[in-house]
Amino acid sequence: MLTKRILYIICLLSGIILRAQNREELNLLPAPQSVVIQDGLFHLTENFSVGIHTSSPDPILVQYVNRIYQSLNRRSGSYFKQQRISAKDNSDTATLQITVIKTQLPVIGADESYSLSVTANRVNLNTATTSGALRGLETLLQLLVQKNDGFYFPAVIIHDEPRFAWRGLMIDVSRHFIPVDLLERNIDAMAAVKMNVLHLHLSDNEGFRVESKVFPQLQNKGSNGEYYTQAQIRELIAYAESRGIIVVPEFDMPGHSKSWFAGYPELASASGPYEPGPPVNFHSVQQMSLGSIMQLVNTAPFPAMDPTKESTYAFLDKFIAEMSVLFPSPYIHIGADENNGVVWKNNPAIVDFMKKHNIPSTHSLQAYFVSRVKKILDKYHKQMIGWEELFSKEISKDVTVQVWQNGAYTKQALDNGNPVLISKGFYLDLFMPAYIHYNNPDIPAQLPDSLQTRLKGGEAAQWTEMADRNNIETRIWPRAAAVAERLWSPATVKGEDDLYRRLFKLSEQLDDIGLQHIANYERSLRRIAPDDYTSFKTLTDVLTPIKGYKKLFAALMKPETMSFQTSPLIQVSDIVPVDSKMKWAFRWAVASYLKNKDSISGNIIRNYLMSWKNNHEELSGLFAKSSIARNVEVHSNNLSAIATIGLDALNKIKEGKTYDSDHLTKTMDILKTAGGTEGETELCILPEIESLVKQKISPLPETYPVF
Amino acid sequence: MLTKRILYIICLLSGIILRAQNREELNLLPAPQSVVIQDGLFHLTENFSVGIHTSSPDPILVQYVNRIYQSLNRRSGSYFKQQRISAKDNSDTATLQITVIKTQLPVIGADESYSLSVTANRVNLNTATTSGALRGLETLLQLLVQKNDGFYFPAVIIHDEPRFAWRGLMIDVSRHFIPVDLLERNIDAMAAVKMNVLHLHLSDNEGFRVESKVFPQLQNKGSNGEYYTQAQIRELIAYAESRGIIVVPEFDMPGHSKSWFAGYPELASASGPYEPGPPVNFHSVQQMSLGSIMQLVNTAPFPAMDPTKESTYAFLDKFIAEMSVLFPSPYIHIGADENNGVVWKNNPAIVDFMKKHNIPSTHSLQAYFVSRVKKILDKYHKQMIGWEELFSKEISKDVTVQVWQNGAYTKQALDNGNPVLISKGFYLDLFMPAYIHYNNPDIPAQLPDSLQTRLKGGEAAQWTEMADRNNIETRIWPRAAAVAERLWSPATVKGEDDLYRRLFKLSEQLDDIGLQHIANYERSLRRIAPDDYTSFKTLTDVLTPIKGYKKLFAALMKPETMSFQTSPLIQVSDIVPVDSKMKWAFRWAVASYLKNKDSISGNIIRNYLMSWKNNHEELSGLFAKSSIARNVEVHSNNLSAIATIGLDALNKIKEGKTYDSDHLTKTMDILKTAGGTEGETELCILPEIESLVKQKISPLPETYPVF
Repeated sequence: MLTKRILYIICLLSGIILRAQNREELNLLPAPQSVVIQDGLFHLTENFSVGIHTSSPDPILVQYVNRIYQSLNRRSGSYFKQQRISAKDNSDTATLQITVIKTQLPVIGADESYSLSVTANRVNLNTATTSGALRGLETLLQLLVQKNDGFYFPAVIIHDEPRFAWRGLMIDVSRHFIPVDLLERNIDAMAAVKMNVLHLHLSDNEGFRVESKVFPQLQNKGSNGEYYTQAQIRELIAYAESRGIIVVPEFDMPGHSKSWFAGYPELASASGPYEPGPPVNFHSVQQMSLGSIMQLVNTAPFPAMDPTKESTYAFLDKFIAEMSVLFPSPYIHIGADENNGVVWKNNPAIVDFMKKHNIPSTHSLQAYFVSRVKKILDKYHKQMIGWEELFSKEISKDVTVQVWQNGAYTKQALDNGNPVLISKGFYLDLFMPAYIHYNNPDIPAQLPDSLQTRLKGGEAAQWTEMADRNNIETRIWPRAAAVAERLWSPATVKGEDDLYRRLFKLSEQLDDIGLQHIANYERSLRRIAPDDYTSFKTLTDVLTPIKGYKKLFAALMKPETMSFQTSPLIQVSDIVPVDSKMKWAFRWAVASYLKNKDSISGNIIRNYLMSWKNNHEELSGLFAKSSIARNVEVHSNNLSAIATIGLDALNKIKEGKTYDSDHLTKTMDILKTAGGTEGETELCILPEIESLVKQKISPLPETYPVF
Repeated sequence: MLTKRILYIICLLSGIILRAQNREELNLLPAPQSVVIQDGLFHLTENFSVGIHTSSPDPILVQYVNRIYQSLNRRSGSYFKQQRISAKDNSDTATLQITVIKTQLPVIGADESYSLSVTANRVNLNTATTSGALRGLETLLQLLVQKNDGFYFPAVIIHDEPRFAWRGLMIDVSRHFIPVDLLERNIDAMAAVKMNVLHLHLSDNEGFRVESKVFPQLQNKGSNGEYYTQAQIRELIAYAESRGIIVVPEFDMPGHSKSWFAGYPELASASGPYEPGPPVNFHSVQQMSLGSIMQLVNTAPFPAMDPTKESTYAFLDKFIAEMSVLFPSPYIHIGADENNGVVWKNNPAIVDFMKKHNIPSTHSLQAYFVSRVKKILDKYHKQMIGWEELFSKEISKDVTVQVWQNGAYTKQALDNGNPVLISKGFYLDLFMPAYIHYNNPDIPAQLPDSLQTRLKGGEAAQWTEMADRNNIETRIWPRAAAVAERLWSPATVKGEDDLYRRLFKLSEQLDDIGLQHIANYERSLRRIAPDDYTSFKTLTDVLTPIKGYKKLFAALMKPETMSFQTSPLIQVSDIVPVDSKMKWAFRWAVASYLKNKDSISGNIIRNYLMSWKNNHEELSGLFAKSSIARNVEVHSNNLSAIATIGLDALNKIKEGKTYDSDHLTKTMDILKTAGGTEGETELCILPEIESLVKQKISPLPETYPVF
């Protein structure tokens, strides 16, 4: 009971702090380009009604308006009289007036701007296109506030448009298959934060995930039976389209393609047979180190298509012809990443071909492959996208380069005249806190105008070696919203405190519309600790997964977790959110207390620390019984120890004392020990305990190591 | 923290009580026909492996085995080495041996028996058919227990087969549309409790929910745009089939058919235009009373098809031709319920037709309609099912009668030679506790053999006037499992305590596989009380919806909740489960204490009562702010008052005292007052408080009024 009320008070507190910094108390995420708060409130009552004004029928708009209308109805409990909005409802006296100039299906580069004004009696939403209206409606929904026994929109004038035209989320559905309903939930969440591209990584070594009628062994032999039928793909695309989102398919080639070869070994550069699965035997690496992994990556014969055979291109021509119809998006992503060329060098026929055609390197051979595939895409009127390795100076200027690892590619590709997408710094599978993505240095604050338009935007990326249908929502949300804001809002919108305040509000909104990011975390805790749920949650609420590739590498080394598709992702490190809400509630209390020495913050901090201090003894029964819980037992003990330190530090502050240098050294040693990794998780409140000890709020680290 | 540990201890206690009653501590639901517990445990380790032995390929079995295998993998965290079971895995040394004699798609009347034996080293599952194997695998999954730092199957010998061949769940997808993914989750839950028929009520006045390509205006004009495409239906049927479940479509006719007439008014007995929606203006009834509602039901001109026009049958012929292909089930349900004939009597042409053909009553006219439709179904080789009103002595013997309201039909139809399904007593939308359905008197304990085979089974029924996608799982689960057990297990399996012990265990299992019955309840609480979640949950955990049709009637009277498809179902009465886990935990503690006067139970009771007593003051802020919460504020106050009574009663028991008659009268008056309805909910722990006061456990009521 206590912690919930604490959190409430904390939110009030953080609000006060933020207002003191002249930030507005709206919960908009992403923040609009311009917001002017007026006096007054629009009161949501049963008489709330909608009039739509369009020059031509706009069924997507009408559907969207109904969804937002019902969301407002549900959240406010107003029992709106209008019940359903039809295209014919164009009354000038309706309290929400929506005017859209041009009916338009979602496209990259559409005018997504909108103007939204709220007065005490009327809401006006004016936009150039359908897409703009969808964005504006989401803003209106986020404006809803509950206070003084009612639900309101604050009076505002908002003008908004996106900074970047391409605001994507990439989901890898190959390593772990992600069912359609789950993708649809992600689309709902994307729409809530004004993202507009769902990029599906549909094939990789581990699985081929879309039905081909032309080459049915792609999905039949290239997957474990889990793939999208063409009917499902069409349904998914329609679902996305009606939320202002386009679906861009990726078929990774020439590397990352082992699953293709299970059914069609003739495509491969080395003889088969093949089965979908990891490209090499990772756990042959004896010692987990960056060096040994990198050596493997550079020297292992990763499966790749044979770029020297005409039959390969004949196959791809037919395949792309089919997929071009299935996916109406003007873009096809061909991957082209992480092909080390070893398998090509190992094949004498390919080496001969290179000699014969004066192809000096495997990188050049890949460029040749890309140029051939480019011709196929041209034939079917599709624009090519690929990961950064596809770039070469000779590449056609209409190929979009997606930068994921080497930031130097951004400048090179832009200078070369190629459009660029940034995913470097947006890899959600690296378990980094949201603010790290938010402050992504690879999104330049400013670019010369000549390059600005070529930088199309970026994409958050969720690879799924360590994520499956049971935890992927907790992995993506709400963190992806930080990426969404970085890509939508002006570069001047900054500040971790305000980001996290809004991010946890957004998390509630996504929970309300059915996202499973909270429910799945709690569900997993019930599985691990059915009889000790609350105490175990007190611990896990302040645990986060270790950052970077450490968790993946640890898994790669273990034979039992090697098979990405069947190993259960059930450890604490698999289920806890990357950003801890408790950490931020505690941090805000510590910051407030250190600044103001107020008793409210002091009591909040004390209550937290007391609950942590006394939690360990509650869990002895669980640790005796559950090996999964036991993997984080050391943290439980440490949490108790550092809470004791925190209480001591709090007393010192009250008494106006500080730590002497010996005591400080010893204390910091304990904190350092408590900062260790257990069960691939770490305690996330150490900086705040340290802040109490040092009586100064610790800044957040600007980066964390990826390896 | 406290309550969770209390619950744990309670479960132990209830276990002790139950064992004292000679009941086994297995968590099997439904209970098998025969279980013999042996000495020993089968330890689940990474070496757990499966060998499959079938005479012909059985892809459904192989898929199912993989799902169960992965469930065991996830729950036990064992990281099984075998990873994936293929049809080729038929090793005799695998630790789980599955032998299936005949590969068979699910059909009604299939041999679903299985024999399952577990020893310390080996698990054997032997079945005659695929369906039996699926049932046995679910039993194996439920056998999993965690103790002494590991996961085990207890050694057992189980022989099992169902009592009834037809164990269904009917979901009304017309009043509120239920998306495919949600139906699929329900299918998963049905499979867990060995149900085998999903009956979809696909059309009604309020909406036509399946795509017809022959008559596209059925779904286009007959729905709000929410319906299943034919591709989705095919996907759903395949999903069900691979879980041993058949999908039976219902198209309700000649009444309950207003949605058909929106696109095809020529089918109707009265001139249009029509829109999907309630059949009459219910809130024209001035005073809510059973009489006034019944009068309306008997006298209102409910829309119905015109049974006198040949064009009606020509339409239905084409329609059923199309649906017969789409739904491979040998059964089509034609509804035929609640047609009061008023609209027929109002139409002179129909009255003329009746005279001309010597049809004496509208009931006879309906019989004529049914006989005509029967011919169409015969033509397409489909067996007819209808609700009880379709029965007449002249009806063909191969028509199945589904009894829902008038139990007399059961005997009449059986005597007449017609197969019967029982839904009377299984209406989940009446908000009755699970034990009421469990003890359903309409399922006879015994029948003469001659009739036994004609009683095919029954169906739990979830109508959706008061349920939508956000709360339907909380409405159906886990209660439907009580129906499943009544239909699967021998009639001798009885006892509310053991039912509820297993029901709440099953609830955890369903939560783990992704059902939303717990998550949606908690999600809704977060929406209502984001800052007071825990305290509000302490209250709502002991609230249940009022029973019977009262909640529906209350809604019918209110214009703002009249439109079933758009009125938000967000009140406390919409979101709380029908069976309270807390009630049962408390009840078991009270029963134990009254019997044994043990301090453990006494302390548990005291802690519960203290938490309830002190909860009201925590909620003042919420009640000030939220009108939805305020609808149950009186209960919060009463909970505090009755908890005070409970504490007083507890002290009396300790002191060996009893209430004098005056005090008792006054106390019972307070309890009676606290038993009132607020916000269409009631406090569910009054019998247990009363038990403390009277120092004797109150039996559960055998029935509750429906009206």
